[in-house]
Amino acid sequence: MAKKILIVGGVAGGATTAARLRRIDEESEIILFERGKYISFANCGLPYYIGGVIKDRNALLVQTPEAMGARFNMDVRIENEVTAIHRKEKSVSVRNHATGETYKETYDVLVLSPGSSPLKPPIPGIDSPNIFSLWNIPDTDAIKGYVEKNQVKTATVIGGGFIGIEMVENLHELGIDVTLVEMADQVLTPVDFEMAQLVHSHVSSQGVKMYLKNGVKSFTYKDGSTTVELQDGTKVDADMVILSIGIRPNGELAKDAGLDVNQRGGIVVDSHLKTSDPDIYALGDAIEVVDFVNGVPTMIPLAGPANKQGRIVANNIAGRLEPYEGTMGTSVAKVFDLTVASTGANEKALHRLGKVYGKDYFVTVIEPKSHAGYYPGAMPMTLKLIFTSDGKILGVQAVGYDGVEKRVDVIATAMRLGGTVSDLKKLELAYAPPFSSAKDPVNMAGFTAENILNKDQEVVRWDEVGNLSADDTLVLDVREDVERELGFIPGSIHIPVNDLRQRQGELPKDKTIVVYCAVGLRGYVAARILSQLGFQAKNLLGGYNLYKYFYK
Amino acid sequence: MAKKILIVGGVAGGATTAARLRRIDEESEIILFERGKYISFANCGLPYYIGGVIKDRNALLVQTPEAMGARFNMDVRIENEVTAIHRKEKSVSVRNHATGETYKETYDVLVLSPGSSPLKPPIPGIDSPNIFSLWNIPDTDAIKGYVEKNQVKTATVIGGGFIGIEMVENLHELGIDVTLVEMADQVLTPVDFEMAQLVHSHVSSQGVKMYLKNGVKSFTYKDGSTTVELQDGTKVDADMVILSIGIRPNGELAKDAGLDVNQRGGIVVDSHLKTSDPDIYALGDAIEVVDFVNGVPTMIPLAGPANKQGRIVANNIAGRLEPYEGTMGTSVAKVFDLTVASTGANEKALHRLGKVYGKDYFVTVIEPKSHAGYYPGAMPMTLKLIFTSDGKILGVQAVGYDGVEKRVDVIATAMRLGGTVSDLKKLELAYAPPFSSAKDPVNMAGFTAENILNKDQEVVRWDEVGNLSADDTLVLDVREDVERELGFIPGSIHIPVNDLRQRQGELPKDKTIVVYCAVGLRGYVAARILSQLGFQAKNLLGGYNLYKYFYK
Ligand SMILES: Cc1cc2nc3c(=O)[nH]c(=O)nc-3n(C[C@H](O)[C@H](O)[C@H](O)COP(=O)(O)OP(=O)(O)OC[C@H]3O[C@@H](n4cnc5c(N)ncnc54)[C@H](O)[C@@H]3O)c2cc1C
Ligand SMILES: Cc1cc2nc3c(=O)[nH]c(=O)nc-3n(C[C@H](O)[C@H](O)[C@H](O)COP(=O)(O)OP(=O)(O)OC[C@H]3O[C@@H](n4cnc5c(N)ncnc54)[C@H](O)[C@@H]3O)c2cc1C
Ligand SMILES: CC(C)(COP(=O)(O)OP(=O)(O)OC[C@H]1O[C@@H](n2cnc3c(N)ncnc32)[C@H](O)[C@@H]1OP(=O)(O)O)[C@@H](O)C(=O)NCCC(=O)NCCS
Ligand SMILES: CC(C)(COP(=O)(O)OP(=O)(O)OC[C@H]1O[C@@H](n2cnc3c(N)ncnc32)[C@H](O)[C@@H]1OP(=O)(O)O)[C@@H](O)C(=O)NCCC(=O)NCCS
Repeated sequence: MAKKILIVGGVAGGATTAARLRRIDEESEIILFERGKYISFANCGLPYYIGGVIKDRNALLVQTPEAMGARFNMDVRIENEVTAIHRKEKSVSVRNHATGETYKETYDVLVLSPGSSPLKPPIPGIDSPNIFSLWNIPDTDAIKGYVEKNQVKTATVIGGGFIGIEMVENLHELGIDVTLVEMADQVLTPVDFEMAQLVHSHVSSQGVKMYLKNGVKSFTYKDGSTTVELQDGTKVDADMVILSIGIRPNGELAKDAGLDVNQRGGIVVDSHLKTSDPDIYALGDAIEVVDFVNGVPTMIPLAGPANKQGRIVANNIAGRLEPYEGTMGTSVAKVFDLTVASTGANEKALHRLGKVYGKDYFVTVIEPKSHAGYYPGAMPMTLKLIFTSDGKILGVQAVGYDGVEKRVDVIATAMRLGGTVSDLKKLELAYAPPFSSAKDPVNMAGFTAENILNKDQEVVRWDEVGNLSADDTLVLDVREDVERELGFIPGSIHIPVNDLRQRQGELPKDKTIVVYCAVGLRGYVAARILSQLGFQAKNLLGGYNLYKYFYK
Repeated sequence: MAKKILIVGGVAGGATTAARLRRIDEESEIILFERGKYISFANCGLPYYIGGVIKDRNALLVQTPEAMGARFNMDVRIENEVTAIHRKEKSVSVRNHATGETYKETYDVLVLSPGSSPLKPPIPGIDSPNIFSLWNIPDTDAIKGYVEKNQVKTATVIGGGFIGIEMVENLHELGIDVTLVEMADQVLTPVDFEMAQLVHSHVSSQGVKMYLKNGVKSFTYKDGSTTVELQDGTKVDADMVILSIGIRPNGELAKDAGLDVNQRGGIVVDSHLKTSDPDIYALGDAIEVVDFVNGVPTMIPLAGPANKQGRIVANNIAGRLEPYEGTMGTSVAKVFDLTVASTGANEKALHRLGKVYGKDYFVTVIEPKSHAGYYPGAMPMTLKLIFTSDGKILGVQAVGYDGVEKRVDVIATAMRLGGTVSDLKKLELAYAPPFSSAKDPVNMAGFTAENILNKDQEVVRWDEVGNLSADDTLVLDVREDVERELGFIPGSIHIPVNDLRQRQGELPKDKTIVVYCAVGLRGYVAARILSQLGFQAKNLLGGYNLYKYFYK
């Protein structure tokens, strides 16, 4: 029974659905509608083409309409926009932008993968000729063309999400002086504030000026330059502005056809990615998905999920029923020399759900090396693991230079398969000095998390240090002399860990002793000694290295 | 109740046991015996120090006896060899090599982590002054000293295991002309023959001469040079020889004390790493472990397991009972620019257990890029996944340049947690162009494995191609013209995949059509088309890229 299948959207989700469908169903008629001029392009590569890292524009075009049509025997219609769905008669209206003509096409099955679009709020001056968003090939051509033609020397990027940050890096790569403006108190919201501090510090060190906690009040264009006025009155001039302040799902088509959409306009689907109409599937950026960790509905616009959903939709259409089991939001970004990766829930998300630290969830922070310290090139990374009292892993965030996304991938895998923090410590991961340590960072995360749950390690967090009272707390630095000389927590006393047993007489038994070292390892050892000697000891999570980002 | 705990062996397993023990038990008396001069050294770093990659000898000494004693309040006795265990009286005899004196020490609990030793079979001439094994710091000093003092220009490495291969690379790094001799038909036995071919090719391309399937008959030393005579009569001269042909567990102490040991001399332990004497634990290279995948007893001498076992032994001694759940053998080696990683069972191991390909297990081979092809620096990797008919993952092997051990780590994690090939396809792994593809190689391994199990893809393997009969088989090349010009399977006909539907009339319906492309992806697409059009089509696993290593 050959079906007629229409697919709206010809990039990540749509093209993948089409390709898989043809592989498992040689008979059906497949028509792929794409309103733009390009299908199957590498959205994720666009910033790097602008930055000249990717040199060849053709490399961005993973498939062309012709090649896709030839290989998969399908009808690929670019510049054809689906403008309405007529569910009763099972047809869609289509506008051919090349010819201006409008026509109808019937379907047995309709697939919606229309993606999302960048937000463009009604800020005064937002339509200035040097303000751009980056979303597709024409945007890319426009930005790259403008940079070259106008010899852009300064740029302001509004929004510190993935794309904003990638644009900061790539414009900087072109020798442009870049300023980043972000309304929140941090960039890259998938990671928590303290992790973002590491990113802020690195971005600043590249010579990029940052305004955090500062929204845009207005844009004023004059003579090829736009002045961005911020909420606090600051004015930033630049030759061009990149707007990257968020996206909205392209859910209008679905909504207008009476399909269920959520408050944000995201298309609601069931576990098999069917919309509220059994003949219409939807996927990709445009749909609401289940948060794999918390079970709540959410929107996670990423290419990996869109590609996976495409294969599942194709399978379901072909009668090979397969559920989609939710999205974790595993993501990674290169930020100059840094890698920032995460998966699952962060603390901000947990707080929104009313979860409380120390009760509903716990946190460990470690700062291992990317590989054996004695082998050249070992780089530090900061890894934060969030877990429940019964060891369930809720999320992980990591920032560093090398091997960062590897550890996040491993933990994402453990999470997907229901692994606990105890499982992390057991994982047998590939070790040789150029690649890891005999105790991999993931194992270390497992050890330290378990120590927290077992109460072998009681911890204090960086943001608690400021509130400690000298009446009932003593802060103890257990690092070596040379380390202390480079900075220490004010008011802390100093006994190197190896001297602790001998010098325990100097310490009070009636106060909580908050121990710290550089990263937490020696602090933990010291706290173990002290608590077994009858002191009340806690360890500063992440040590002085993390603390120093907050108290300068 | 403070106990007296003696630990034999002061490196990976022993030192880790001691450190963990002290952290959870401040009271007990801990004595660490090490017969050598060094504890806690970086065994795995030794080859790189010889090669000058690690410059500072001190970097190899992760802990010193003094620092370890100070931090962990334990009695570290280097140059003290435990020579006998007196189980009835719960004591050991110890020889102090520094003083020559012998004494006894009693214990409540004894821990054996004596490691293993390199094999030195009675081959004529094996005691020549320029033949070395590499196992510890004195060996390292001896080799490095010999190279420098004698201005070594040529070296022969006997044995292509991890250490042999690392020595090949590191001696080559010093400008030495290196020859590798290996008795088996391949190096790096954790991977199967076809995967090793990729390694052979790379090692040869570095200018290293290799003799495979060729054992050593004799060594003849003369005037600072050793001639190695091989089984086939070939003679290889070199200024020095590195012997790296295997190891044996240091099980004599245990055996002499009447503890259970296996045929190879490995100490037998229970699930809690206790020997047949309830007061004696053993761990590390010296013990027999359970093969996590096949459940059979085996010996897996690796640092990761030794470190993990150390922590478990300490926990068990302290009454925090914890089982050791077996070893998968996850490993990785840098081989010049290549990374070779694997975990679980390979085909050789499965064959030894009587398992049959196509019945007891199945194989997929993919050749994805390390990250998005359009982003600079994407490198090919070859990944082989072995699985059962119900999707259980038995093992994975991967060879490539970048991101290789990441994929093996992810799959090792899935295996540890009981994941199937279907789980691999669902994994949400971190994607941005510099790091991966929207469909990560691990997802691809899952897709292709499932396609094989679903019979969506029937495959032919490289070693079957030679045996195909033209009477009932047609070999079909579906690559582009330019690819074919660079080489093809003799006797194959050529129709590019995109032309297949139109040119299907040229193909027979009564023969099996073996389709191939470069890596298998287009071959799969082509085979899908053909089989749905009524042809009998199979796809060549790994494509022409893998095939070409075997038929030159
Ligand atoms: C600059 C940039 C960088 C990115 N980097 C990453 C990254 O590193 N990692 C990652 O995971 N994700 C990244 N993403 C996100 C990723 O590209 C998207 O999540 C993914 O493409 C979503 O797939 P989709 O099919 O839902 O939408 P899209 O791939 O956007 O495809 C939707 C298509 O539908 C078309 N369309 C919409 N409505 C209609 C209509 N009515 N008729 C016809 N056609 C229509 C649109 O023109 C569009 O081409 C990036 C995105 C951008 C823009
Ligand atoms: C050159 C080299 C490279 C390696 N590379 C890697 C790698 O990249 N990845 C990996 O996973 N593994 C690697 N390994 C293996 C890894 O080092 C071992 O698996 C690990 O050290 C085993 O730990 P263990 O405690 O059992 O033995 P060891 O670490 O070897 O410690 C045993 C110690 O016990 C001492 N001893 C023995 N008998 C007695 C006695 N009777 N009394 C007192 N002391 C005694 C020995 O002198 C020795 O120092 C490598 C090994 C070598 C030699
Ligand atoms: C180009 C595009 C249409 C390709 O879709 P696709 O054909 O499903 O994907 P791939 O080319 O990666 O091929 C995957 C298929 O090949 C198979 N395959 C891969 N390697 C194989 C091998 N060595 N042997 C056999 N089969 C193989 C897989 O099993 C899978 O087939 P299946 O889904 O039927 O199981 C789609 O990926 C696309 O549009 N990409 C660009 C847009 C995008 O994703 N943007 C966001 C990221 S920048
Ligand atoms: C040096 C050596 C004795 C250290 O052993 P160790 O103290 O158990 O190991 P580490 O120094 O890595 O510390 C791990 C401990 O610190 C804890 N830790 C690590 N980072 C931490 C942090 N940031 N905060 C709190 N605790 C932390 C871990 O939880 C673990 O403690 P636990 O076992 O009590 O849970 C041992 O690793 C050794 O001998 N190594 C060299 C020999 C060798 O392994 N060779 C083979 C490989 S080359």
